[in-house]
Amino acid sequence: MTDNPQPPDLNTMPRFAGVATFMRLPVETDFAKLDIAMAGVPWDGGTTNRAGARHGPREIRNMSSLIRRVNHASGIAPFELCRCGDVGDAPVNPISVPDSMQRIQGFFARIVAAGAVPLSAGGDHLITLPIFRALAAKRPIGMVHFDAHSDTADSYFGGERYTHGTPFRRAVEEGLLDPKRVIQIGIRGSMYDRHDLDFAREAGMRIVTIEELYDIGLDAVIAEACRVAGDGPTYVSFDVDGLDPVYAPGTGTPEIGGFTTHEAQRMIRGLQGLDLIGGDVVEVAPPFDPSGNTAIVGATMMFEILCVLAEARTRQAR
Amino acid sequence: MTDNPQPPDLNTMPRFAGVATFMRLPVETDFAKLDIAMAGVPWDGGTTNRAGARHGPREIRNMSSLIRRVNHASGIAPFELCRCGDVGDAPVNPISVPDSMQRIQGFFARIVAAGAVPLSAGGDHLITLPIFRALAAKRPIGMVHFDAHSDTADSYFGGERYTHGTPFRRAVEEGLLDPKRVIQIGIRGSMYDRHDLDFAREAGMRIVTIEELYDIGLDAVIAEACRVAGDGPTYVSFDVDGLDPVYAPGTGTPEIGGFTTHEAQRMIRGLQGLDLIGGDVVEVAPPFDPSGNTAIVGATMMFEILCVLAEARTRQAR
Amino acid sequence: MTDNPQPPDLNTMPRFAGVATFMRLPVETDFAKLDIAMAGVPWDGGTTNRAGARHGPREIRNMSSLIRRVNHASGIAPFELCRCGDVGDAPVNPISVPDSMQRIQGFFARIVAAGAVPLSAGGDHLITLPIFRALAAKRPIGMVHFDAHSDTADSYFGGERYTHGTPFRRAVEEGLLDPKRVIQIGIRGSMYDRHDLDFAREAGMRIVTIEELYDIGLDAVIAEACRVAGDGPTYVSFDVDGLDPVYAPGTGTPEIGGFTTHEAQRMIRGLQGLDLIGGDVVEVAPPFDPSGNTAIVGATMMFEILCVLAEARTRQAR
Amino acid sequence: MTDNPQPPDLNTMPRFAGVATFMRLPVETDFAKLDIAMAGVPWDGGTTNRAGARHGPREIRNMSSLIRRVNHASGIAPFELCRCGDVGDAPVNPISVPDSMQRIQGFFARIVAAGAVPLSAGGDHLITLPIFRALAAKRPIGMVHFDAHSDTADSYFGGERYTHGTPFRRAVEEGLLDPKRVIQIGIRGSMYDRHDLDFAREAGMRIVTIEELYDIGLDAVIAEACRVAGDGPTYVSFDVDGLDPVYAPGTGTPEIGGFTTHEAQRMIRGLQGLDLIGGDVVEVAPPFDPSGNTAIVGATMMFEILCVLAEARTRQAR
Amino acid sequence: MTDNPQPPDLNTMPRFAGVATFMRLPVETDFAKLDIAMAGVPWDGGTTNRAGARHGPREIRNMSSLIRRVNHASGIAPFELCRCGDVGDAPVNPISVPDSMQRIQGFFARIVAAGAVPLSAGGDHLITLPIFRALAAKRPIGMVHFDAHSDTADSYFGGERYTHGTPFRRAVEEGLLDPKRVIQIGIRGSMYDRHDLDFAREAGMRIVTIEELYDIGLDAVIAEACRVAGDGPTYVSFDVDGLDPVYAPGTGTPEIGGFTTHEAQRMIRGLQGLDLIGGDVVEVAPPFDPSGNTAIVGATMMFEILCVLAEARTRQAR
Amino acid sequence: MTDNPQPPDLNTMPRFAGVATFMRLPVETDFAKLDIAMAGVPWDGGTTNRAGARHGPREIRNMSSLIRRVNHASGIAPFELCRCGDVGDAPVNPISVPDSMQRIQGFFARIVAAGAVPLSAGGDHLITLPIFRALAAKRPIGMVHFDAHSDTADSYFGGERYTHGTPFRRAVEEGLLDPKRVIQIGIRGSMYDRHDLDFAREAGMRIVTIEELYDIGLDAVIAEACRVAGDGPTYVSFDVDGLDPVYAPGTGTPEIGGFTTHEAQRMIRGLQGLDLIGGDVVEVAPPFDPSGNTAIVGATMMFEILCVLAEARTRQAR
Repeated sequence: MTDNPQPPDLNTMPRFAGVATFMRLPVETDFAKLDIAMAGVPWDGGTTNRAGARHGPREIRNMSSLIRRVNHASGIAPFELCRCGDVGDAPVNPISVPDSMQRIQGFFARIVAAGAVPLSAGGDHLITLPIFRALAAKRPIGMVHFDAHSDTADSYFGGERYTHGTPFRRAVEEGLLDPKRVIQIGIRGSMYDRHDLDFAREAGMRIVTIEELYDIGLDAVIAEACRVAGDGPTYVSFDVDGLDPVYAPGTGTPEIGGFTTHEAQRMIRGLQGLDLIGGDVVEVAPPFDPSGNTAIVGATMMFEILCVLAEARTRQAR
Repeated sequence: MTDNPQPPDLNTMPRFAGVATFMRLPVETDFAKLDIAMAGVPWDGGTTNRAGARHGPREIRNMSSLIRRVNHASGIAPFELCRCGDVGDAPVNPISVPDSMQRIQGFFARIVAAGAVPLSAGGDHLITLPIFRALAAKRPIGMVHFDAHSDTADSYFGGERYTHGTPFRRAVEEGLLDPKRVIQIGIRGSMYDRHDLDFAREAGMRIVTIEELYDIGLDAVIAEACRVAGDGPTYVSFDVDGLDPVYAPGTGTPEIGGFTTHEAQRMIRGLQGLDLIGGDVVEVAPPFDPSGNTAIVGATMMFEILCVLAEARTRQAR
Repeated sequence: MTDNPQPPDLNTMPRFAGVATFMRLPVETDFAKLDIAMAGVPWDGGTTNRAGARHGPREIRNMSSLIRRVNHASGIAPFELCRCGDVGDAPVNPISVPDSMQRIQGFFARIVAAGAVPLSAGGDHLITLPIFRALAAKRPIGMVHFDAHSDTADSYFGGERYTHGTPFRRAVEEGLLDPKRVIQIGIRGSMYDRHDLDFAREAGMRIVTIEELYDIGLDAVIAEACRVAGDGPTYVSFDVDGLDPVYAPGTGTPEIGGFTTHEAQRMIRGLQGLDLIGGDVVEVAPPFDPSGNTAIVGATMMFEILCVLAEARTRQAR
Repeated sequence: MTDNPQPPDLNTMPRFAGVATFMRLPVETDFAKLDIAMAGVPWDGGTTNRAGARHGPREIRNMSSLIRRVNHASGIAPFELCRCGDVGDAPVNPISVPDSMQRIQGFFARIVAAGAVPLSAGGDHLITLPIFRALAAKRPIGMVHFDAHSDTADSYFGGERYTHGTPFRRAVEEGLLDPKRVIQIGIRGSMYDRHDLDFAREAGMRIVTIEELYDIGLDAVIAEACRVAGDGPTYVSFDVDGLDPVYAPGTGTPEIGGFTTHEAQRMIRGLQGLDLIGGDVVEVAPPFDPSGNTAIVGATMMFEILCVLAEARTRQAR
Repeated sequence: MTDNPQPPDLNTMPRFAGVATFMRLPVETDFAKLDIAMAGVPWDGGTTNRAGARHGPREIRNMSSLIRRVNHASGIAPFELCRCGDVGDAPVNPISVPDSMQRIQGFFARIVAAGAVPLSAGGDHLITLPIFRALAAKRPIGMVHFDAHSDTADSYFGGERYTHGTPFRRAVEEGLLDPKRVIQIGIRGSMYDRHDLDFAREAGMRIVTIEELYDIGLDAVIAEACRVAGDGPTYVSFDVDGLDPVYAPGTGTPEIGGFTTHEAQRMIRGLQGLDLIGGDVVEVAPPFDPSGNTAIVGATMMFEILCVLAEARTRQAR
Repeated sequence: MTDNPQPPDLNTMPRFAGVATFMRLPVETDFAKLDIAMAGVPWDGGTTNRAGARHGPREIRNMSSLIRRVNHASGIAPFELCRCGDVGDAPVNPISVPDSMQRIQGFFARIVAAGAVPLSAGGDHLITLPIFRALAAKRPIGMVHFDAHSDTADSYFGGERYTHGTPFRRAVEEGLLDPKRVIQIGIRGSMYDRHDLDFAREAGMRIVTIEELYDIGLDAVIAEACRVAGDGPTYVSFDVDGLDPVYAPGTGTPEIGGFTTHEAQRMIRGLQGLDLIGGDVVEVAPPFDPSGNTAIVGATMMFEILCVLAEARTRQAR
């Protein structure tokens, strides 16, 4: 039916067999042959508490074998719509934050230059900053951001400005992110200070705490996300700690009392229609994930984002 | 008060003590002495992905020690109403699918012939097919089916027609299952193909996806289940992957975004009043269950099904 | 801003560093220097099934490093409002129930005599009885009690009157607890006998089963809790098995089908305004908690209770 | 060939199937029908540190399914030589030490009265004291004792004389154990006091520290064990913490630097020829045993002891 | 220095990064470009007890990232000596034994036809039979076999002749294996019957039980292995259950009391000089391997075998 | 008997109770009050592969509760000989290598200035470099180094000179370490290059590979260690990956085939008589340690080193 890359036929190979790639797709090193490039960013050098997200891409790849071809709810079949593939991992340096950020930016700049939409598996949340530097070099972008944390702190540990708690303040400061087109969903957890969220709010980001989420309901949150993102180019960033930690225990900064995977799936599906240009799933930390469920969740969230990206890409191509 | 078999008195024996049987009931090899026969089927030869359900019956037995005597919500006390016992495990052959199916069918035929209602702990979902061959030999039956998957595929791996993804297509083809009296609740997960559910739908099965479940609500689903099952003999099949995998990580084919145990308990209790003739809890795979919660869930779901079976049996006996 | 004890500054010390104390607060052995004394009670000698809660305080301390300073929902900053500290563990005797109860009572009598409000990490639920003996010596108190179990049985194993299933019957008998000012929320699980809850109900306790909780909704439960507790001195006891076991697998007597952590947080926050005089989080059993989530939950529930205790203490001090 | 009880034929039932009993043998409640009675003692009320051995018997039963029929090294086939069976668990009271000791003694008194040799799965090491009270009522016995600890302390926690650290001092004091016929093998671990071993040494017990074991070699240790035990009735007590904790992490008081399972097997086999009258494997604590290996080791050590018991029983019967 | 395929430079990519392949080597689907073809065989359909080895190849690949380039003891640098690569997984059918055996044989026939030496990661031990059918089609081969079990049973479960307990009897019967050139090292574990090893011994296989191994010492075992294998083509089959289960808990049929990894490494290195033509590491079952050590061990054993294969291949090529 | 700090009396407090400090000793912030200062260094920023050692100090503290007072083999009672205490954790910065190294050095400089001997729990092995900068500022020191790796690489990832693989090359270059007085014991594992050990060997370090260790035996290794260290000031550095990974799975760079804990204990005890001035136990990574055994091992190794440090300190004080 299609010449697009496809996972191996189940008649030949059961899902647990074969070298583990994202959703069992072929590895493709020529990025120009892809519409959507799935990449790992195995790096957690920005982590302020429990490291381990460097091992995220491998476990997400492994568990993504459970993914099939068609979204049962939306009917989207991304491998039919687009040429999707696994482009391997961004180069990283586990010892150096600045060198890693440069390596990651360079890798994604090549993806962007090739015309492919990046969908990444982190890695801690700082990886989104170099991705933005590659992706938003020409104009600020909007973001639908699922997370327990706003990630807009200024610095940690006496002046560290590049950590997984600071990427979106940096992105605003660097003109990569348009704060008025940013919505953060699921925010919660005890705060260091009453003013932790001041920067985000004053910059114009729309914060939906978990309490508001349950007060207004999923449909209202989805509508709000679409309203905030508007017509401009928009990125979807999914930090698994936005979920309740029972769904994603394997993460660095768990905060109890989060949303469910079902709710997350519905919210992502609700983004259909936006001008989506990239996405990521971050903070899957396998050393804290004895049952493997966090990686399964991470893989499925990638698939949900892939579906709306593929739909957007198809629209954009028209 | 009653001569029915009972678990040992807590004054003599704490719940963690003693040889582990289903709900601490005596092992009974004379099936005619029982109204409800609880059996293990330690077999996972039909599993297409992650095996391990062969170890399900033992861990369910172990964790079922947590079960007491009276359902706190419905007030049903099954060991008062009926003679319940553990009849041990069906014989199986881990190397051969056809031999196992024959052995399992033979074991359940003996239970049926003795006049006892079977309540089984799997094993993978293919075990339900030989149970049906024993139980529905004389007339097709209805089914209330909790699952993420319809299990009505035609074949896998180039023609394998007997797997845990195919039992209910076979059951319909063999005239064991009346598809118009089948409801499948919790269906979800990415699909191999847009047509994965065509057989089920065309045969007349009522599919309640997880999205519909949350859209219409539990009460409506329960009403629908009772409507579909109607007055005829009905079986309850509970695949633990119908639950969200946080409740049942120890399973072969997890699909995120499922229903909760509380919702499952309410749905099963809602089946009170149907003409129930048997049930099972399948796909508990202990090697993937580091906390043991899946086995606890499996044991409690057996108890919930036991309560409605006991109530039905008592009505039938009148 | 304040001279109250504070956790170390994040600029000096990351959260995973340092000797683990409750919420990274200093250890304080002079109880009179504290408004709220956080204590461990590492004892599970009253456990009728799976022991392990003796290891609860250490793991709760360890995971409580994740807690910061300000409640994001209520805005309460307990370390600003009150002098809070870790007073170490109550002395216990793992071999003897009566000696342990005496040691625990003595330890809490010293806390009470020093004028501090106790907030404890258990240990099994029997520890609440000696705490009550210290705290309610002068007048019976009320209680908001989150639990799957009523813990009002009379005896176990042929006459054992002091177990984690009996503390609140003893507390009523000893005149420590005013049953008419007790609400038990989340009650569920199969029963040994239809009459298991008769004592509690006949004494006048308000039992909210999990079914009622979902039928009437959180707001109604909160209102009911406030109505029952009234104006008198009230204790908050949080047994983690009130939660669904996916949130708290590390516990001795799990019962599936419980409430979520988000719901628990909302309910505790709803107690703001009561005359709260103490609290505890019990039944965290680390040996059954492979992911550590139960201890994270226990630590966060302590923080939620701490916030309402601090607010009450501040009101009381006025 | 023999009418003795046998495990089910592998042609009928794979090893992972069926209700879990010791070595897949039938449950036998008429003790007189057995030469060797395998019993569980699910009790850890004497544990001074990490409890959990109450769950030992069930997991040992579960893993003992791996045991077949013939000892590959000695050629002993215990089920051919003797009538062996699973007699279930001794009654216990998890809340009371003295009541449990009485219940356990009563249970083993019935085994002894029936003429059967007891082989037990603990439980913590205090269980050996009530077993001795049943087994050595008429004359003191000798003991080959594998352990990291001498278990001859006087008391703990300000006077507790009955703990898992004191059974053999009590047994000597009560005239149940002849200290001159006791050898303790594998003793090690930091001591509370230089005099910790004085009682044992002064009473005449032969202590082989782990250092001496490796200095003199296995053959010399075996010879010494046979010399010390001599011709009189002798009990074999195997505490799994005698092994290095890599072989038995699931135990309450691990001490690094112990002997291997292979060495343990050789030492037990070397006891062939003694007048053995009973044995036990204690301190298997499943909550601390994530891989299950401790229970496998415990089950296999039971089989090794069973082989030498069966051989002794056969000689005694002649 | 060499054009052979190499793992990525550590300066570019840390070892935990990138799609997981055997020893971080490129995937190569043109087998003719390789001297040594590393293949996975993700299949456990021959497993009589605990399945899970189907997941072995992926976890071995994952952990094999820890492998570097040069054997520190022998100095062999296999990637310098030979063109080594990952050829992916053999196709398998988890539902059918005969179909899987045919698929596996076909895959290895292609490797052999291309002139490459196969080094496989199982999978259960039955996979060695179809490999032999591909590799020994023209003349019987010898084998150095590390295992707790002889794997020369005749049948299981009432006639199943193809299981992981029977491959080497079948291989002898089919003329693939010259029993006089077979040595089995590490044999142990209780036996079903005194005659379990008769076939192997009567056919002329040299059995070194674990007891003999420790009695005669490693050097003598190595000498014996070389003597038995002689000058002819020889295969190395390494079942991880030959190791003590503390080194390899993740396996289907653990037998305590085995050899250590250090001893295994020395024995494999001692095979240098033989005419080696292939090898495998089998029975790594990740679901039973919570720490991941079994996969690390499996990967390192593959590297040790790879070194002696590379050395042999280089000699053969001269 | 002594005014030295002591762990709490067991009569008051069981070992699992209380805030977890090293060996249950008091926290002491006035370093001058101590002879031996036990410190944590919760940092793993130098880790090239699997991070997690930042959590080492807490878990070592937790498990060190198992330690009692007297070394059973040497008879040394360190708390009698010396004033020992827990000085808390060195300040660290998880985001910055250079800042962390400065913070760590400053902390240890204060310990050294106060006249106390430092005994540290890491953290990754790079922490030893800033400790050396504090401890060896005035003259180069010798080292007995237990490890699988020489840790004398030059750089990683394109020029990173400060990683856990490079500390001892830096220490030699900086004149802190006298390579001729360094012995490295247990070296093994595949190498990146044949020349990996050239720097160490050419500088004069004595490398005892694991193969040589078993070839010459423990006594010869101990003699060699004493000969190499000689009379000068000597540090003991114990990387837990020197042990076989079955003893220490929770570590970043496991290498199979290592020495046992018993062998390690004997080697450390054999250092009695040297002029020891400090020590550390590093690379305990709890996220990879499901059974907790690595932390138990780390704690016990700290105790073994503490005993020889206390003995040396006592000699030095005379």
